[in-house]
Amino acid sequence: MISAAPFWPGDRLPRFAPNGGTALSGFTRPLARLIDQFERLPGIGPRTAQRLALHLLRQPEEQIQAFADALLAARSQVGECQRCFHLSAEPLCDLCRQEERRNGQICVVADSRDLLAMERTREYHGAYHVLGGLISPMDGVGPELLKIQPLVRRVDQEGIEEVILALTPSVEGDTTSLYLARLLKPFTSVSRIAYGLPMGGELEYADQVTLARALEGRRPVE
Amino acid sequence: MISAAPFWPGDRLPRFAPNGGTALSGFTRPLARLIDQFERLPGIGPRTAQRLALHLLRQPEEQIQAFADALLAARSQVGECQRCFHLSAEPLCDLCRQEERRNGQICVVADSRDLLAMERTREYHGAYHVLGGLISPMDGVGPELLKIQPLVRRVDQEGIEEVILALTPSVEGDTTSLYLARLLKPFTSVSRIAYGLPMGGELEYADQVTLARALEGRRPVE
Repeated sequence: MISAAPFWPGDRLPRFAPNGGTALSGFTRPLARLIDQFERLPGIGPRTAQRLALHLLRQPEEQIQAFADALLAARSQVGECQRCFHLSAEPLCDLCRQEERRNGQICVVADSRDLLAMERTREYHGAYHVLGGLISPMDGVGPELLKIQPLVRRVDQEGIEEVILALTPSVEGDTTSLYLARLLKPFTSVSRIAYGLPMGGELEYADQVTLARALEGRRPVE
Repeated sequence: MISAAPFWPGDRLPRFAPNGGTALSGFTRPLARLIDQFERLPGIGPRTAQRLALHLLRQPEEQIQAFADALLAARSQVGECQRCFHLSAEPLCDLCRQEERRNGQICVVADSRDLLAMERTREYHGAYHVLGGLISPMDGVGPELLKIQPLVRRVDQEGIEEVILALTPSVEGDTTSLYLARLLKPFTSVSRIAYGLPMGGELEYADQVTLARALEGRRPVE
């Protein structure tokens, strides 16, 4: 008789893994390699990697080919816009090619995801500048690692009237905002987006920093 | 002035998405295509797909090439073992090529993942048979869609003395176990793994079906 394999309902892991970390190996080599590739992705654990790889094995060949092509194309074709450093497959991104966006405004964001978040508001119609991160002395990220020099040059060359800083309210975001404000104020007006209570946010559940920011940023009722 | 983009701490989604489902589009085409490929995977939402795609953009070219190669190789090289239907890159899988495993036992499992779970116990040293699923009339899966005929043939041709059913304790698992037991009992002895309280499981928190199974499967203390 063999001893019974304990039954673990659902996807829960056993408390005592029979052989520790290598618990999920054992698949044929080409499949193990694919599982390994998925496991390298952030936030993908061994169980998820296995699930995704086994799913793909069941897909039609064309689907796998499309995935592989998309991977290679994205890596080889996507770079940064020469002007604003937004992710782009062209030397100039879609936004920078729109003449009407050269309205004297530049909105400064940390990365392309933040740029797209701003775009989704549909309330901003000017140009952008993607810094590529935030100043963070703790992580060794100084201003020289960000696209700050190109921003200064653009403010000068493009006749920018307002720089709008749209950086997250955090130590790094605030440091970067202050740094940029001091650097740019001699040449242009500098503003930053408002920080406060989010729409639909309950005052009672708001953290104290958010509430302090909301109080600080209060405006007269019109 | 532009209106403020509300600040959403962490990765929480805004309660009121500005434009619903298409909230995350807007990336340059090759990148959008890669994000789309990730979104097709089970359990991967738009936010995760975006995070994975942006992560890969920052990896070295070789890493992306390795991922694409692994995808294509897994799909083209991995099939089923001709004998036991375990996922295999060879006509016969590693386990079926081990002579010492032809010991008269076959352990029947629903899929390759269950086979590997059994292997991790290191307590079973016989052959396997992968059914490719469980009988499920609700989902239109009848016995003819599973590798049951090949199992009957193996029992006959390989001189199998014991078939061990290692199927999950569920309606489908029980139906399949009963079906197989009735089919195979004229030719060989049929057993099934024990169902009961998992190791480390608290009796007080065990669900009643598990506890009923444990009671039903009680054995004399030796």
